[in-house]
Amino acid sequence: MDFDEVITKRRSIREYAPGRSISEQQLEKLFDQVRLTPSARNLQQWEFIIVRDPENKKKLRECANNQKHVEDASAVIIAVGTKNLVLRAEMTTKDFAAKEALLAKLKDVSPEKAKVWAIQNVSLAVMSLTLAAANMGLSSCILAAFDPEKVRIEFGIPADYEPVLLVTLGYQSKPAPERPMKLGFDDIIHFEKFGKKP
Amino acid sequence: MDFDEVITKRRSIREYAPGRSISEQQLEKLFDQVRLTPSARNLQQWEFIIVRDPENKKKLRECANNQKHVEDASAVIIAVGTKNLVLRAEMTTKDFAAKEALLAKLKDVSPEKAKVWAIQNVSLAVMSLTLAAANMGLSSCILAAFDPEKVRIEFGIPADYEPVLLVTLGYQSKPAPERPMKLGFDDIIHFEKFGKKP
Repeated sequence: MDFDEVITKRRSIREYAPGRSISEQQLEKLFDQVRLTPSARNLQQWEFIIVRDPENKKKLRECANNQKHVEDASAVIIAVGTKNLVLRAEMTTKDFAAKEALLAKLKDVSPEKAKVWAIQNVSLAVMSLTLAAANMGLSSCILAAFDPEKVRIEFGIPADYEPVLLVTLGYQSKPAPERPMKLGFDDIIHFEKFGKKP
Repeated sequence: MDFDEVITKRRSIREYAPGRSISEQQLEKLFDQVRLTPSARNLQQWEFIIVRDPENKKKLRECANNQKHVEDASAVIIAVGTKNLVLRAEMTTKDFAAKEALLAKLKDVSPEKAKVWAIQNVSLAVMSLTLAAANMGLSSCILAAFDPEKVRIEFGIPADYEPVLLVTLGYQSKPAPERPMKLGFDDIIHFEKFGKKP
């Protein structure tokens, strides 16, 4: 699909046709595009738990303010970010000299910064995910409002990973509602300095 | 351009042809697509400072570990996120009853959470930005490594905004280097529970 069409057609969809499934093949195509997301120092801090089992979706719904679309969606993605940058560098950098140089740089990165990077990395990847899904004819919705510690316990997420966002994926059961109000160019743009308006 | 082509062709570009400019028209088209990014409670916490003045790009380079491409790019975007959710709700929700309901919900959001949401919102928008730029034939690079407090002072960013990411925009002066190693499907995907591999 044309990019302009994808970015315009993508909407946050909360009404899904139940009982329709997403195949491994679809998931592979989807995450093959998500993988191309850029990241600080190419650390690719993102990982994804794909939840399709009805019982697990029900559990996840309970972690997410009981939002119905978490259970109705064909799949829900738990997007997590690793805070263990040293281990990540081991995975992403094969050349010995490059790895040593990267590890030296990562020594200056505080645990707080590693967490912020995890949130940034995962959010960038989630935007790729939601657009790539739209391009494949899948509807989606990103959720920020959930209990990360409850999700951690239910889905066995280790302490050095941060649950960042959830993404529902599926087939919408009715047309998207009217687009919510979007701020205009003048509302969000500054020229050269903060406060200097177009 | 086709979506598959955009997402594949987008690369982090650090070598720019100097002296080429980006017009207001290009910026308007670009941010018209960025505006469509989804956000928690539709709060659209993102704002952008567009830096094109050579002196200001030089200053920004000094805030970003002296990285040359910050000065060479045609424009650099400082992507900031507001942490003032109440003020944002006033801007994004016009209907009185809906606004009251939203404000009641926002009372439970801690300042730490508002900051995390700001980082998430801005990162989602920055991914839209970098893909929309690629679709328009513009090269870009997202930068996470910069001194946010130095940027805050130099560009007059208020205390209730968080500088999140920088994005260079311009015309690349040579072909993109080889794509860095990307983790595979098996590295980043778990099924149903963390640790359960495909």
